[in-house]
Amino acid sequence: MSDGEEARVLEKALSSYYHYEEYALNEIWKPRMCKWMSLSNLQKSKIPWYGKYLGELKRCIMKNAEFYRLVVQRSVAYWGCNPNPDQWSQPTSYDMDKTVLMFTQILREWSQECQDERDLLLTRLRAFLNQEIPNKFERRVVKVLIPGAGLGRLIVDLVNDGFCVEGNETSYHMLLLSRFILNGEHPKEGLTIYPFVHTFSHQLSHEHQLRPIRIPDVRISEMLNGVCSMSMSAGSFVDLYGPPLGIKWSEYYSADIEMIRYREQNASSVRIVVTNFFIDTGSNILDYLETISHVLEDGGYWVNFGPLMYHYENDSQVEVTGDIDPTTGEVKNVNRFVPVKGLELSLNDLIQVACDQYAFDIIAKEIGIKSGYGRDPTGIALLGYMCNYWLFKKRKKSFSIC
Amino acid sequence: MSDGEEARVLEKALSSYYHYEEYALNEIWKPRMCKWMSLSNLQKSKIPWYGKYLGELKRCIMKNAEFYRLVVQRSVAYWGCNPNPDQWSQPTSYDMDKTVLMFTQILREWSQECQDERDLLLTRLRAFLNQEIPNKFERRVVKVLIPGAGLGRLIVDLVNDGFCVEGNETSYHMLLLSRFILNGEHPKEGLTIYPFVHTFSHQLSHEHQLRPIRIPDVRISEMLNGVCSMSMSAGSFVDLYGPPLGIKWSEYYSADIEMIRYREQNASSVRIVVTNFFIDTGSNILDYLETISHVLEDGGYWVNFGPLMYHYENDSQVEVTGDIDPTTGEVKNVNRFVPVKGLELSLNDLIQVACDQYAFDIIAKEIGIKSGYGRDPTGIALLGYMCNYWLFKKRKKSFSIC
Ligand SMILES: C[S@@+](CC[C@H](N)C(=O)[O-])C[C@H]1O[C@@H](n2cnc3c(N)ncnc32)[C@H](O)[C@@H]1O
Ligand SMILES: C[S@@+](CC[C@H](N)C(=O)[O-])C[C@H]1O[C@@H](n2cnc3c(N)ncnc32)[C@H](O)[C@@H]1O
Repeated sequence: MSDGEEARVLEKALSSYYHYEEYALNEIWKPRMCKWMSLSNLQKSKIPWYGKYLGELKRCIMKNAEFYRLVVQRSVAYWGCNPNPDQWSQPTSYDMDKTVLMFTQILREWSQECQDERDLLLTRLRAFLNQEIPNKFERRVVKVLIPGAGLGRLIVDLVNDGFCVEGNETSYHMLLLSRFILNGEHPKEGLTIYPFVHTFSHQLSHEHQLRPIRIPDVRISEMLNGVCSMSMSAGSFVDLYGPPLGIKWSEYYSADIEMIRYREQNASSVRIVVTNFFIDTGSNILDYLETISHVLEDGGYWVNFGPLMYHYENDSQVEVTGDIDPTTGEVKNVNRFVPVKGLELSLNDLIQVACDQYAFDIIAKEIGIKSGYGRDPTGIALLGYMCNYWLFKKRKKSFSIC
Repeated sequence: MSDGEEARVLEKALSSYYHYEEYALNEIWKPRMCKWMSLSNLQKSKIPWYGKYLGELKRCIMKNAEFYRLVVQRSVAYWGCNPNPDQWSQPTSYDMDKTVLMFTQILREWSQECQDERDLLLTRLRAFLNQEIPNKFERRVVKVLIPGAGLGRLIVDLVNDGFCVEGNETSYHMLLLSRFILNGEHPKEGLTIYPFVHTFSHQLSHEHQLRPIRIPDVRISEMLNGVCSMSMSAGSFVDLYGPPLGIKWSEYYSADIEMIRYREQNASSVRIVVTNFFIDTGSNILDYLETISHVLEDGGYWVNFGPLMYHYENDSQVEVTGDIDPTTGEVKNVNRFVPVKGLELSLNDLIQVACDQYAFDIIAKEIGIKSGYGRDPTGIALLGYMCNYWLFKKRKKSFSIC
C-alpha cells in the first residue's frame, strides 16, 4: 500500500471506533426498544422489568463508547492523524462490526476471566521453552516471531519470560487497540468495559450480561520491565517475511523492490515462530507454510495452537494474482478470478505437507484440545473450538527450495 | 398462505433439491478447482494428490445429487406437483443453501453416527416417560406434540415407545425430506449420502471428509409397526396451536377464521410438548410460551432440550404485525417496522417468566449439557452447543390468561 492508502485504512479503523456508540445503539439497543414497544399489552405485562433492563443496556453501550473515545484520542496523537474526525474516511459496515468483535478480543487477551483460555497454549509453550532455552542470557538473543499477534498479550508474556519478541499484524483495528493497551498509561485500577452487551444468545441472566470487566489484568509496564525487546510489524505476514519464489503476486505479496529486499533480510532470522489461532486466517495456507519455513533458521521451531477453521471457506469473492519475474520484478500472467476460498487442507494433509515438503520434524503434537475464544467462563455460551497444538522443528539441512 | 402461495413455496423447495448438483459443483467444487489451477508450479508440486482429490469430491457431490433426484421424483408423485421442473418457482440462494445444510440434518436424525447426540435428550425423556406413564395401554391415548419436528426422528422414536405423536413443521425443505424418509420404500441396505463434502474446516483427512454414510440407521416401517398414531402438521406452531389473545397478527399468526377455529380446537389438547432445538427459532419467544401453555392440558408436561441460540439475533429485517379485533377478526394498528430480532431472553429470565407468568412448575432442570448438532463424532469439528434440559409441569389451576 502507498502511504496515502495506508493512512486511509488507519483512518477508517479509527473512525469506526469513533462511531461505535451510534452504531451499537442503532444495531443493538434500538431494535430491542422497538421490539419491546411492539409487544401486546399482555406480553409487556409478563416482562415488567424489560424497560429498565434496556435502559441499563444503553448505559453500558455508552460506557463502552467512552472507552473507545479514549482509544481514539490517544491514537490521533500517537499516529499523527488528522485531528478532525469529520474528515476521516468513512468506515464500512465490516469496519463497524469489528468494533463490536474487538470486545471479545480484549476479553480474550487482557482480562483475568480468560487466563485459563490463554493458559492452554502458554503452559505447553513454557514447558518447551523452559526445557529448550532455560538460560536467561541466551533468551535475550532468541528471536520469537508471532504472526497475527492480535492485541499483543502473547508478546508481553514472552518478553516477560526474557525473549526478544516481534509481533506482526495486518489489521489496523488490532494495531490501534494494541498500541493503546500496550503503551497507554492506564489508571491503577484499570479500565472498565462491558464486553457481553452485544450478545443475547447463551446468556445466563440479564444481570450477568451487563456486568463490567476490568482490563488489563496485569501491570504491563512492570511486565515489560523497561527492557526494549519488543516490536510490532504492520503488514501481511507473507509480504514481510515470505520467500522470494513460489508465492504469487497479490494484495498480500507485493513485487515492490523494497519489500523484496526486506523479505530477503528476514530469511532465517528467527528462532521460533508461534502461530496462535492464525494458520487458518489466510486464503492460501501453503503461502503461510512457505513463509514460516523461510523466516525460520535451520533447527528453529514452529509452535502452533488453534483450530482449522478456515476464515475464507465460505467467502465467494475472488482476488487478483500473478507471476513475479524474479529478475525484473515484473508481474505477468495476471489472473483476476482466483477464488479466495478453495485451499483448506485437512489436518493430516497439512501436517504431511509440512513434514514432507517443508522439511519440518514433529517434536510434539496434540489434537482435540477444547478452547473458547474470548469466552465468558461463567456463561453458558458456545463451547468453542477443537484446537490442535504442535511443535515442529525445521530440519538442519533443509531441502525446501526457499 | 393461500393454496397457490403454498404450492409455490413447496415448488421452490423441490426445485432447490432439483438444482443441488449444479449449485454444489459451482459453490464447492469449482472454486477449489480454480484455486488449485491458480497455484504456482512450486506449490502445485507440494500437493500432487490434490487434483485426484478434487475429482473424488466431484463424484461425491454427484452421488448426493442422485439422492436428491430420488427425493424429488417421489415427492412430485406424492404432493401432486407439476411434473415439469422448468415450470417450478425458482429457488432463492437461501433455498439453495438449505440443500447443503439438510445433509447435516439427515446425519443428525437418521444416521447411526449421531445416536449419542440424539440420546442426550432421549435417555432423559425416556427416564421420565417410563416413570410417569409406564402403562402401554395408557400410552396409546397420550398425545405428544413436537413443534419444529425436523425430519421426524423423535416422532418415530416416541411412536415406537407407544405414544400418539404429532409433529409440526413450517419448513418445506424439512417436510419434503421427512415425507421421503418416513414413507419411502428404501432398499434394505439403506441409502448412501456424503454429508461431509460441503465442509472443509475441521477435517481430519480428506479421505475422512469423503466417506459415505448409510441412512436411515433403522427400519422405519418396523418401528412404526403398522400403528397409525403419527401425524405431521404443516405450518407455524403459533399459528396452528396458539391462544386466541395476546399474540399479534403476523405472517406467523393469521386472523383467518378457519385458523382461529383450528386453534380453539387445539386448546388443552396435548399431554406432552417436546421442544428439541426449537425454542430459540422464533422472533418472539413469548409467543412460543403462550402457545405451549395454550395447547397443553392442565397438569401436562413441557420437555425442552437445546441451547438458547436465538436464530434471529443478528437479523436486521423487520416484519409486519398488528392487533386482531377479537370479535370481528379485523386487523388494526398495523406496525410495519417490527424488528425480527430483539426479544432474546436469558436462561434465567425465560425460566422465571415461564414459572411466574405461564404457570409452569419446574420438575427437572439441567444446564450446560454439551451437544453437537449433526456433528461427525469421529471428526475434529466444533464442539457444538451448551444445551439446557428441562421438564416443566403446567399447574392444574392455571392463572395464565389464555
Ligand atoms: C484469530 S486472530 C488471533 C489473534 C491472536 N493471535 C489470538 O490468539 O488472540 C487472527 C489474527 O491474524 C491477523 N491476520 C490475518 N491475516 C494476517 C496476515 N496475512 N498477516 C498478519 N496478520 C494477519 C488478524 O488481523 C487477526 O488479528
Ligand atoms: C434447529 S431445527 C430442530 C429440528 C429437530 N427438532 C432437531 O432437533 O433436529 C428447528 C426446526 O424448527 C422449525 N421451525 C422454526 N420455526 C417454526 C415454527 N414457527 N413452527 C414450526 N416449526 C418451526 C424449523 O423449520 C426447523 O426444522
